[in-house]
Amino acid sequence: MKFIENGTVTSPKGFTAAGIIGGVKPSNTTKRDIMMIASDTLCTTAAVFTKNLVKSSAIIVTKKNIENGTAQAVIANSGNANTCNADGIEKSERMCELAAENLGIDKKDVIVASTGVIGQVLPIEPFEKAVPQLAKLMSAEGGSDAAEAIMTTDTVKKEAAVEIELGGKIVTIGAIAKGSGMIHINMGTMLSFVTTDAAISSEMLKAALSEAVEVSYNMVSVDGDTSTNDTLAILANGKAGNEEITTRNADFKTFTDALTELCKKMAKKLAADGEGATKLIVCSVKGAKTAHDAKGAAKAVICSSLVKAAIFGSDANWGRVLCAIGYSGCDIDVSRVDVSFVSAAGEILVCKDGSGVEFSEELAKTILLEKEITIDVRLNDGDGEAEAYGCDLTYDYVKINGDYRT
Amino acid sequence: MKFIENGTVTSPKGFTAAGIIGGVKPSNTTKRDIMMIASDTLCTTAAVFTKNLVKSSAIIVTKKNIENGTAQAVIANSGNANTCNADGIEKSERMCELAAENLGIDKKDVIVASTGVIGQVLPIEPFEKAVPQLAKLMSAEGGSDAAEAIMTTDTVKKEAAVEIELGGKIVTIGAIAKGSGMIHINMGTMLSFVTTDAAISSEMLKAALSEAVEVSYNMVSVDGDTSTNDTLAILANGKAGNEEITTRNADFKTFTDALTELCKKMAKKLAADGEGATKLIVCSVKGAKTAHDAKGAAKAVICSSLVKAAIFGSDANWGRVLCAIGYSGCDIDVSRVDVSFVSAAGEILVCKDGSGVEFSEELAKTILLEKEITIDVRLNDGDGEAEAYGCDLTYDYVKINGDYRT
Repeated sequence: MKFIENGTVTSPKGFTAAGIIGGVKPSNTTKRDIMMIASDTLCTTAAVFTKNLVKSSAIIVTKKNIENGTAQAVIANSGNANTCNADGIEKSERMCELAAENLGIDKKDVIVASTGVIGQVLPIEPFEKAVPQLAKLMSAEGGSDAAEAIMTTDTVKKEAAVEIELGGKIVTIGAIAKGSGMIHINMGTMLSFVTTDAAISSEMLKAALSEAVEVSYNMVSVDGDTSTNDTLAILANGKAGNEEITTRNADFKTFTDALTELCKKMAKKLAADGEGATKLIVCSVKGAKTAHDAKGAAKAVICSSLVKAAIFGSDANWGRVLCAIGYSGCDIDVSRVDVSFVSAAGEILVCKDGSGVEFSEELAKTILLEKEITIDVRLNDGDGEAEAYGCDLTYDYVKINGDYRT
Repeated sequence: MKFIENGTVTSPKGFTAAGIIGGVKPSNTTKRDIMMIASDTLCTTAAVFTKNLVKSSAIIVTKKNIENGTAQAVIANSGNANTCNADGIEKSERMCELAAENLGIDKKDVIVASTGVIGQVLPIEPFEKAVPQLAKLMSAEGGSDAAEAIMTTDTVKKEAAVEIELGGKIVTIGAIAKGSGMIHINMGTMLSFVTTDAAISSEMLKAALSEAVEVSYNMVSVDGDTSTNDTLAILANGKAGNEEITTRNADFKTFTDALTELCKKMAKKLAADGEGATKLIVCSVKGAKTAHDAKGAAKAVICSSLVKAAIFGSDANWGRVLCAIGYSGCDIDVSRVDVSFVSAAGEILVCKDGSGVEFSEELAKTILLEKEITIDVRLNDGDGEAEAYGCDLTYDYVKINGDYRT
């Protein structure tokens, strides 16, 4: 498996995309806000959505559209979440209709997604005008523009693609995502669209996505909130010409592993670009009684505001790490816990057998001043392992969220 | 029931206290950091502690000491949590011994508590020197000094007392607390000591405390973290001369109601003084299917970083309120949810039947600029009610926690 340079959602064969300034965002912005992705042919599809009981109308419409396991295109916008609106369903359906009409496909084969402010009526006029234009712009080079069009408070586009070989055929998987803010365990305001030219049944695609998401997107947290709009969808058009994956065979494993690595890469990108973030934090937990325990502990550490603020301040405050593990619900023997901080600048053990050890504050500071910090937790009580991804808590997070809506 | 002016932990009959600069905090500070509270006679006692698996040695020692339901004094310090230290138990026991020796009581009747940085060895020398002095300073006017001595990043002392009549006798209940930071649902770094001259069995005292804490301290959140040191203890010395409460009779109810009101008052003080806080946020949920659902929803709103940041920015971003209720696990019918913002400046309905309504942004801003904001949520789906207490998320929270330890 290898990552493709400048890989994106249009890297797999037979996919096109485009993103334009459609006017959903305030008229004084010059930011892309409507995008489409399409396959030349019908795809198998799978998707996972937020577990929030308050759901975007887009999710309700998408769920219905992909019930049969097929889809051919995605239409999405930023600037408005189309959530908690009395006419939300109608608007999401109209978005699908517009995409279908202009792409010459069935409206039941369109995935729709929205992200932005909750509870403001979504203006449909921008779509009526923009979608015909978008359809004309669709190209195999359009992935990046599509990635840009779903950004909200993101500061960088998130895109990547990987390549594998299945039975002598090159199979590509590409992805774009938007995250920032609200990102959490259960996928806070996260949109991600994955495409592949692999031939794979929708049942196996579902299984692969479910495995991949569990250790990637679901292990990301920026601030503990879970959004109303989170959607991760994958489309597979079979153009790679590999033998269709219909069982859990070796090809399924190769495909799932590659999808997992791609999703992990995207998850890290999302965490590193959390609102106001200056650092990516990875919490690696090893030696837990079970993988479930390891997950719980890793998530608790990554979600702790106090840990996040300490990392922002490059303060080796390992007591907060222990505190978070302690309330995580993870079954631990405190007297066996070791904690180290690791980065490109080195590694330092700060807690051994649940108690502090003497360490160089200077070296600790140097390590914590790096952009990517790993909090390495060893529970020494079993074989359970997990990794979670988060970011530091900064002044800018407060600034961005104290005045986002207006 | 009435609140007593300048009420504190020494307001009930027969209690004395003192707090001094003992030198646990860095030598360049002139802040009180060691305190004692004592009763002239043996008390019945009850306490609740953090649910964090990582626990301060002080909690382990206290649990053992109060197993028999009696206690006579409290010794506590700020500046060091005495948690995750190999010699922690030994140090906590020595604190009890010192208190007992100097107060002329049994060391098994001492409650010990510590708050501050985790994982740094607690120096015992300051106690050896300070406790004899403290014992001499003990007085019925010492409650405020004791309150001061447990402050960490608190900006104000927290103390209050209430008075009730039981069978013609005046019964007083007094309390001090320290909170800030880490405050959460399960009592993040919170110490609170409550005293009363009521005559009440330790069994009934436990029952009363358990009822009171459920709707007060346990409904407070500042940042979602749960501390390793949280302790809430109550001492009852019977000096009021009321007939001892040994069953769930009318006196028990009067006592428990008063204790609950006192604890709610303290809980609000804790929330309002959360680290960096500029505003107290109360989330009132009514009409839930059950009280349990109402609690879950109220806590989720109060714990949401996005809601907290929006309130800091005086932004009527009600979508975030719905989002938090949506992921709270509370069983709701989204299409029935109403949300209003309420403060001394007025009241404004922003969401009706789960969808946005038109409202004056100007009035909303005026309402949200106040120091105490109530987020009023009506689920219109039953009789379950709950109130949770929190604060806004500010630049100062990040500042305080980015560099607290060093």
